[in-house]
Amino acid sequence: MSKNIVTETVSKDLSLQYTYKKKLYSKKSNFQKVEVVEGTYYGTMLFNDNVAMVSTRDEFVYHDMIAHVPLFLHPNPKKVLVIGGGDGGTAREVLRHSSVTLCDMVEIDEAVVEACKKYLPQTSSVLKNDKLNLYIEDGINFIKNCKQKKVLYDVILIDSTDPVGAASPLFNDDFYKNVYSCLSDNGIVVAQAESPFYYFDMQKKLCQIISNFFPITGVYNYANSTYYPGGAWSFILGSKTVHPIKDLDSCKIKNSNLKFDYYNAELHKASFALPEFQKQALSKFIKL
Amino acid sequence: MSKNIVTETVSKDLSLQYTYKKKLYSKKSNFQKVEVVEGTYYGTMLFNDNVAMVSTRDEFVYHDMIAHVPLFLHPNPKKVLVIGGGDGGTAREVLRHSSVTLCDMVEIDEAVVEACKKYLPQTSSVLKNDKLNLYIEDGINFIKNCKQKKVLYDVILIDSTDPVGAASPLFNDDFYKNVYSCLSDNGIVVAQAESPFYYFDMQKKLCQIISNFFPITGVYNYANSTYYPGGAWSFILGSKTVHPIKDLDSCKIKNSNLKFDYYNAELHKASFALPEFQKQALSKFIKL
Repeated sequence: MSKNIVTETVSKDLSLQYTYKKKLYSKKSNFQKVEVVEGTYYGTMLFNDNVAMVSTRDEFVYHDMIAHVPLFLHPNPKKVLVIGGGDGGTAREVLRHSSVTLCDMVEIDEAVVEACKKYLPQTSSVLKNDKLNLYIEDGINFIKNCKQKKVLYDVILIDSTDPVGAASPLFNDDFYKNVYSCLSDNGIVVAQAESPFYYFDMQKKLCQIISNFFPITGVYNYANSTYYPGGAWSFILGSKTVHPIKDLDSCKIKNSNLKFDYYNAELHKASFALPEFQKQALSKFIKL
Repeated sequence: MSKNIVTETVSKDLSLQYTYKKKLYSKKSNFQKVEVVEGTYYGTMLFNDNVAMVSTRDEFVYHDMIAHVPLFLHPNPKKVLVIGGGDGGTAREVLRHSSVTLCDMVEIDEAVVEACKKYLPQTSSVLKNDKLNLYIEDGINFIKNCKQKKVLYDVILIDSTDPVGAASPLFNDDFYKNVYSCLSDNGIVVAQAESPFYYFDMQKKLCQIISNFFPITGVYNYANSTYYPGGAWSFILGSKTVHPIKDLDSCKIKNSNLKFDYYNAELHKASFALPEFQKQALSKFIKL
């Protein structure tokens, strides 16, 4: 009897088997195999090349932490750029901040947007927001053009997949040099930074790259139940002026009247406290 | 072609498949199927009824957090009781504290101890420590007897499996009433408390039970890469007098000269900052 299963390989020893009721979407794009399935426990899920990207059950964790940490830190974020994140969840959280007047979102793979538009309205409904501009384009080129045109953003979020395939050029110096140039005076970048348990070499490399350009560099962890298997996963934050712990104004969070399922002021600060092995391995690059 | 695989069911939609090179131990005990396998990425692993219990790669996370949070909080921990934890990892960390003169360890399943003695010296070598007394006995009865004999411990650690099978009576009022009675004046209990993503009802129940007896009740999270799949897992701490954040003395940690791979003072404090959904759901029971 054949079963509806997506198998995600995590390490040499471990694979995750997601059983689903129904496949809703499947397309081999120029970049990857894009699939949406309807599960039970995790709700609707998006997979790229068999790697879980979004589940309607717990996407709030990742999207809260990539967006609200920098958005509450920045004194007045108006213009935000999201590179990747074609499902829309990151942009959705960005646009809950009333100060934001514009959110540009650059997704390389149109199939991701198409799949999410059809089957993941929980994240993709943000595409209807007037303040959102979607560009189907390579993020590398987009940021190069921004630099040439002297376009500036207050916050840039690198909502990328793992550093293999389409996302791998996002993990290098040239890209972050341009990111730095495209940030305004108090600008902040946050990048998806893999796990201290898995792909830790990649996390170290990214931390080094970001600390090459930004006077303030921090790493913060969060815990998702799906699509980032195995405990803590990390974001790396590069900042021109704002300190991600000392400069957090808890009143601003309270006064925003925004409600969150994951994010809160204590967790914001706490997420920068790293396990000892991670703290030591990254100590050369963390500048807080 | 048949493969060497252990399959652990996490939810309706998700199962984990651990591939191993060699099975080292397998016994159907009176309580469960106990297996030790030799993997690649995760090293040697212990499974009870196909649920990962210990991996030599990352057991430090769990054992650091169950032991050092209460041991550094207690002003002078001398006598410690571990219920469960037959692999020895928790007792090993307890006995690194020089103030501890005695650690009683009560494991219901002799097969777990036998398997770990043979194949998991990384955790089980503690059994040779003169300060350790191992009892192969039901923890429920052990604590009842302690109460009758008026035996007191400074710290009690409930290092149990999930609340199914042998461990389920550890998740009730009678048990914690006895635990409270067997703790000295500044006594602290810490219990493995499942995940806010999985078995959250059980976590709520356990938090309610512990808060019924202890004037100070806190929940703290940690992230393991194996054997607690899917992000944050929790411990619940019940304390008679010591506040788990305000009363932490960072100098004591420094002066101990103990080195850890996971635990540190900042992480100790940060681990009590909970995701908003967890904080709200447990707010009736948390007393900090």
